[in-house]
Amino acid sequence: MRAVDIIADKRDGKELSREELSFLIGGYVAGQIPDYQISAWAMAVFFKGMTPAEIAALTRVMLGSGAVIDLSGIPGPFIDKHSTGGVGDKTSLILAPMAAALGIRDPMMSGRALGHTGGTLDKLESIPGFRTNLSVDEFRSILAKDGFAMTGQTREVVPADRLLYALRDVTATVESIPLITASILAKKAAEGAEGLVFDVKYGSGAFMKEASRGEKLARSLADTGAAMGRRIIALLTGMDEPLGNMVGNFLEVEESLDCLEGAGLRGKPGPEDLMEVTLELGARMAVLGGKAEDAAAGRALCEECIAGGRPRELFLRNVKSQGGDPAQLLELRGKWRSPIVAEIRVPAGAGESAGGAKSGKNGGFDPLYIRRIDAWKVGSAAVALGVGRNRTEDPVSPTAGIQFHRKRGAAVKAGDPVMTVWSATEEGLAAALPRLEAAVEYGAEPPPPRKLVLKEITAEPAAAGPEGSASPAEPLTGPAKGGR
Amino acid sequence: MRAVDIIADKRDGKELSREELSFLIGGYVAGQIPDYQISAWAMAVFFKGMTPAEIAALTRVMLGSGAVIDLSGIPGPFIDKHSTGGVGDKTSLILAPMAAALGIRDPMMSGRALGHTGGTLDKLESIPGFRTNLSVDEFRSILAKDGFAMTGQTREVVPADRLLYALRDVTATVESIPLITASILAKKAAEGAEGLVFDVKYGSGAFMKEASRGEKLARSLADTGAAMGRRIIALLTGMDEPLGNMVGNFLEVEESLDCLEGAGLRGKPGPEDLMEVTLELGARMAVLGGKAEDAAAGRALCEECIAGGRPRELFLRNVKSQGGDPAQLLELRGKWRSPIVAEIRVPAGAGESAGGAKSGKNGGFDPLYIRRIDAWKVGSAAVALGVGRNRTEDPVSPTAGIQFHRKRGAAVKAGDPVMTVWSATEEGLAAALPRLEAAVEYGAEPPPPRKLVLKEITAEPAAAGPEGSASPAEPLTGPAKGGR
Repeated sequence: MRAVDIIADKRDGKELSREELSFLIGGYVAGQIPDYQISAWAMAVFFKGMTPAEIAALTRVMLGSGAVIDLSGIPGPFIDKHSTGGVGDKTSLILAPMAAALGIRDPMMSGRALGHTGGTLDKLESIPGFRTNLSVDEFRSILAKDGFAMTGQTREVVPADRLLYALRDVTATVESIPLITASILAKKAAEGAEGLVFDVKYGSGAFMKEASRGEKLARSLADTGAAMGRRIIALLTGMDEPLGNMVGNFLEVEESLDCLEGAGLRGKPGPEDLMEVTLELGARMAVLGGKAEDAAAGRALCEECIAGGRPRELFLRNVKSQGGDPAQLLELRGKWRSPIVAEIRVPAGAGESAGGAKSGKNGGFDPLYIRRIDAWKVGSAAVALGVGRNRTEDPVSPTAGIQFHRKRGAAVKAGDPVMTVWSATEEGLAAALPRLEAAVEYGAEPPPPRKLVLKEITAEPAAAGPEGSASPAEPLTGPAKGGR
Repeated sequence: MRAVDIIADKRDGKELSREELSFLIGGYVAGQIPDYQISAWAMAVFFKGMTPAEIAALTRVMLGSGAVIDLSGIPGPFIDKHSTGGVGDKTSLILAPMAAALGIRDPMMSGRALGHTGGTLDKLESIPGFRTNLSVDEFRSILAKDGFAMTGQTREVVPADRLLYALRDVTATVESIPLITASILAKKAAEGAEGLVFDVKYGSGAFMKEASRGEKLARSLADTGAAMGRRIIALLTGMDEPLGNMVGNFLEVEESLDCLEGAGLRGKPGPEDLMEVTLELGARMAVLGGKAEDAAAGRALCEECIAGGRPRELFLRNVKSQGGDPAQLLELRGKWRSPIVAEIRVPAGAGESAGGAKSGKNGGFDPLYIRRIDAWKVGSAAVALGVGRNRTEDPVSPTAGIQFHRKRGAAVKAGDPVMTVWSATEEGLAAALPRLEAAVEYGAEPPPPRKLVLKEITAEPAAAGPEGSASPAEPLTGPAKGGR
């Protein structure tokens, strides 16, 4: 077997075998196959794609490059939710305790903020004392005790993915759906989840701008998961506007707590868009966990569960388990903010280009509506404020962020407050304000209704067996000694 | 400027600028851009191609990575011919002295045999004492004295091509027409040729199997040459069957000498196919060198020139100039062969599958014709005999090879000799014979007439100027100090 022949086969659109992928990626991890061959292969994959069986083989090979968390001895079912990343997306913080309250264990390994998207780890770490660098033993024992545990990816898990991602990042091969699929699935399989719900986001604030590309990724995740014998449901959800009313690390913890106390639930005031997505995802977790027959029943179960208050209890218990102080968290709530504050209000003359009737005071228009708040602009302002980061090594601020007082569809008039903005530095604020002002689009007509969950995509898992979930990892081979 | 953005632009089908290509390739040669980025870029080029302006810019960048042979002080015109490689292709050995006899100087830098194709340098070196590692000074002085000089590529010339080719070779990116174009043109521009005739071969014995791909390369060479202000004519010629009656290093020198003495010329016995291609190429060299108005006049001039005997004289003079002994060469002629000999004859029962009338003796067919002799099979047998090589470091045999007694179109009967085969080893012969036997196809009907020169492809050169031939090389920039 020669790496160059494997690259040529992929370049010519052929399906690679498990043996070939194991030779290539195993050899790469072992330092026997050079990075210049892997980057050429990755670019060929970008153009030629991979079949679900091929992606499943790659996932197994990547999984086999490191450790798999051993959850034996802890009763399941183990179901996790994974989002492709968005702005204001704090559904994980609500879903994990909610699933636990339903008797579903969520072994959650999350990522950090990158670019305009937020990261669950950064949000959790804004809780003073909260640790996201759990050892495997801690992870296991907290998962057993609280029903969920939330940690970062350990060094032992899927080292092939770290190597491969670093290479893709500098060779313009990040945007390959098969490679994204294998990367996500390998990490999720390593954490021990049996069933997975994916929140594949599309729109300006997502990595996939077009719904069609998001759907391709959702389809790829479902089909590959099925080829690996895993139960997967993917929802394609809109990320054109930020989710919920808070964007910021501690701000989003607070909003999650609000939601765990019923905000936005069953018509109560609060972030309805956030709860809509959360409940639809939770409904699928309930289905995969065997707690509900279908999504409608699952959703009703989730609503009831939150209303019962148990998820809030479990959330605070987990804060304690992971090193935080629940009393301090509740004490800081609503108060802990970055020192530099600004208000963004509806400007005079807003919506002029929208052609409404010029009749209001202040030279504005009447009626006037918020048509849209652009998620990408908000996310990029949040990075300037210190909520997110452009480079993985940059620190983030726990207390910077944005609170929305009015969102899409609100009838407004000039001078109404739209956002409060907190920044640690004047420079950050100066950079963020114009982006935030530009993010709000006004118009004389209310915006059309919005469908947050566009589609559900799933696939029947292949029968368990040698290819099934029982043995998800492929032992790495790599080239024989003395090969290139 | 960042390499990853340049790769992404190419991946997305954008045209790269001279500055971007200089940054990328210049940085690579300087060791500032890593090979894993270049291989990803090369794979993106494989899929997305390049415009003629882009290929011209890449050619200039590559040319600027090394020295350009200085031919100042030697009167021109300097015209060279380059073949993409075939089996039995010894046209260069006839064309260079013929052009010189017409007053055209041919500064010829050639390559070695690789895979199933032969190499001019290996053929020349089969002449005892003949040196192909001329210094630049020797090259200049022999070119001035004999009108042509034949050498290998010096280390100083286009180092970027050596680096890039070695990387493409192990990353399945050799087969990219823009990269092939830039590689060929940079090397040809470095040797100082002002006008270039390309023999782009297609068919089983060529690197391009389909005429359509050969035509693409021919078009790419012509258009890119034109964008660089060079006069280029490309002929698309058939390489489905070996050219001439000899395949072997010294054997091909002998056949070239035969042709320089008139074999195959104007109906005289000899390799008519070889002379047809040689004269058509020579005609274009005469046109580019300003010695003939058009190809027809050029061809007449070439025929006359060879008939006059001056090219033969110049060939022998050059043998002396480059270290050989013309008297010894003529002495060895017809005698110097590898020791192990075999004859391949028309087998009894040949052409049975072709469905002719079964009436001949020996259970054969009557009439029986050679329909085709497959160039690839002959080339691969030649490698086994030691004529060529599979790895650049393998030695070749001067005296091994194949002589065809009958070729395509010949009426034959069982037992007629088709080839004599010489090998240095029994193993080589054993490996070669079945390939050679399988190379000959017999049939009851004569084969259809063959058109050796399928097409002529040319392009008007851009006006000379800052982009013109006066300054073909692009100074390398590479990333600024401190860049990645």
